Amino acid sequence: MTELITGIAELTTNDDSGERAHNMALVIGDGRILWIGTAAQAPAADHQTDVGGRAVLPGWVDAHTHLVFGGDRSAEFEARMAGQAYAAGGIQTTVRATRAATEEQLVATARRLRNEAEAQGTTFLETKTGYGLDVASEERSARAAAQVADVVTFLGAHLVPVGVDRRDYLDLVTGPMLAAVRPYVQFIDAFCEQGAFDVEETREVLIAGRAAGLGLRVHGNQLGFSGGVRLAADLGAHSVDHCNYLDPADIDALAASNTVATLLPACDLSTRQPFPPARRLLDAGVTIALATNCNPGTSYTTSMPFCVATAVLQMGLTVGEAVWAATRGAARSLGRDEGADAIGSLFVGGRADLQVLNAPSISHLAYRPGVPLTAGVWREGARIES
Amino acid sequence: MTELITGIAELTTNDDSGERAHNMALVIGDGRILWIGTAAQAPAADHQTDVGGRAVLPGWVDAHTHLVFGGDRSAEFEARMAGQAYAAGGIQTTVRATRAATEEQLVATARRLRNEAEAQGTTFLETKTGYGLDVASEERSARAAAQVADVVTFLGAHLVPVGVDRRDYLDLVTGPMLAAVRPYVQFIDAFCEQGAFDVEETREVLIAGRAAGLGLRVHGNQLGFSGGVRLAADLGAHSVDHCNYLDPADIDALAASNTVATLLPACDLSTRQPFPPARRLLDAGVTIALATNCNPGTSYTTSMPFCVATAVLQMGLTVGEAVWAATRGAARSLGRDEGADAIGSLFVGGRADLQVLNAPSISHLAYRPGVPLTAGVWREGARIES
Ligand SMILES: [Zn+2]
Ligand SMILES: [Zn+2]
Repeated sequence: MTELITGIAELTTNDDSGERAHNMALVIGDGRILWIGTAAQAPAADHQTDVGGRAVLPGWVDAHTHLVFGGDRSAEFEARMAGQAYAAGGIQTTVRATRAATEEQLVATARRLRNEAEAQGTTFLETKTGYGLDVASEERSARAAAQVADVVTFLGAHLVPVGVDRRDYLDLVTGPMLAAVRPYVQFIDAFCEQGAFDVEETREVLIAGRAAGLGLRVHGNQLGFSGGVRLAADLGAHSVDHCNYLDPADIDALAASNTVATLLPACDLSTRQPFPPARRLLDAGVTIALATNCNPGTSYTTSMPFCVATAVLQMGLTVGEAVWAATRGAARSLGRDEGADAIGSLFVGGRADLQVLNAPSISHLAYRPGVPLTAGVWREGARIES
Repeated sequence: MTELITGIAELTTNDDSGERAHNMALVIGDGRILWIGTAAQAPAADHQTDVGGRAVLPGWVDAHTHLVFGGDRSAEFEARMAGQAYAAGGIQTTVRATRAATEEQLVATARRLRNEAEAQGTTFLETKTGYGLDVASEERSARAAAQVADVVTFLGAHLVPVGVDRRDYLDLVTGPMLAAVRPYVQFIDAFCEQGAFDVEETREVLIAGRAAGLGLRVHGNQLGFSGGVRLAADLGAHSVDHCNYLDPADIDALAASNTVATLLPACDLSTRQPFPPARRLLDAGVTIALATNCNPGTSYTTSMPFCVATAVLQMGLTVGEAVWAATRGAARSLGRDEGADAIGSLFVGGRADLQVLNAPSISHLAYRPGVPLTAGVWREGARIES
């Protein structure tokens, strides 16, 4: 069964030309893109969908979320909006609620949020453990995550739980906890920040993960100059996330590495942190990704369009740069932007993960902030109903 | 036919207590609110709608839009995002396209945008003329506006059109143009800004409008210290809009007046102006409103939820203050917050203009930015389908 999509006013493929093509058509079938070309040359197909002069682009790749949790933290949010500063300790609230939740409850919450994300165009999603922080709860979280997300990251090193010795906890994370979650996860991550883990502790966790065959990610430099960014670059991590506080040596280290800087603008607004220096990163040649960081404490949004709009309106990215960062840049941060199973770009033979905007151009994502513009989403060739 | 709405986890009525009530119910009928009380005491009704533990609040009142226009300005927007400064002259582009449009085209565009706004909870909407700038085009714009909006403002004094003498144009605006639009409008407005109209010109326009029985509004202090704010307060205008640049005397003048400061956060983001000092205004006792300023040049969004989220996350308003400003504050800026036909608040006997959020509390409007949270909208008691 093949489907011809016509009426594409503007097509963003994320091929190396960086151009948006006009008056285009696509054929998809068996979950893949079978043909891309001008509308005038479109072949026949079993079905035809006319998107009526709208823009088509790859589905969003959300490469940083924390969807496996119990409870909510709206009271902490309201207190923060009334002037209270963000502190990492709020995570402990969610840990208590997550430990009290069943696996079914964790899956249900994560699935509801994934569905919400898909309704706004997200077709590929990473999520993390990190609110269990004991072996059984992290294992349950990892198993729940694997039922909902495309990629799962082990974040046992989110925080040392209350009442546990630091050294004992590091031994647990790098030993039995890592072994318990290993069947369900592809990446390991650590929160390298004052109040969480220092550079040497983070290094120990990441090296243990690498020895277990996992890719590396780091939460770094969100609340200060934590050293997490330089460590990520040194270890060849796939991604270092947040990056609000960067000195010139951090930017040089990223530019000399293959590590992607994953920026989280909705989190920055919610915690009232300064935005990362996105323009300086791009100008230095660093690859950037945009992600929601969806979590109940510091960024309770699933909306990639909101992140893209904020990146353009407030972080100095062009619309094209922001869309690329939220699709192919994010894919690169997951090691998935090349090869036959690449995501975040549209190419013949590749996955048919795409979205149609209720607008003639991707520029409307920032030109019309807050307006729900998602007109249709296809994931592996199947239309998502919402 | 009466309808009982139950399952209201949190009810924001905007009564003078300023409180949000819990476990509430409403009865509506004949377009009005017939009863408000606790769920336990709810009377019977012809129909019942259970909103399932969600928050209910008044529909948004969008008190500043420019929906009557031809063309679009996405190219200018992309140039601005690439670093070009905003200048008022871009309005001339829309004037050319608006003059070329038929009344039916103008109505169709405005209605599409109003429908989009309603789908996000807007139940009452002001719009303006101001892209015609000759007698026939302003009259056509006013007639189109009156078919779509609840309140229409005459903004002949948006800009002196290209090729017209300033003095001649002021005579036209205050004479034949005002007479031509008069049957369709309730307010007069002027753009008091460098490049548009100075304080004395603005005063002349407003006084002519007042003599014709119109309420007064001013676009003031958007791009600099234009004097528009003080003029608005001096003349007892209902509203002065933008207010990005305010010196202490401006704030004192507003505090001593009944003039509402209508703030336009989406416009500020799109033009990269500093946000107005909302906190200082509130602390001085000034009434503030929030509006979209929906227009194709500087703020092409219909999303009141986006404006509320931005006001909380970035302008220092609490969620309660932002919601009040986007409902009852906006109603006050239109002279419609008191009496039997008041809008922007929920009271027995008043209009049944209300919305249900897909969330248990209004705090989620800022806690979950970008997530479409509108779960249902009633306008004069009738459910709006979207
Ligand atoms: Zn995170
Ligand atoms: Zn305006």
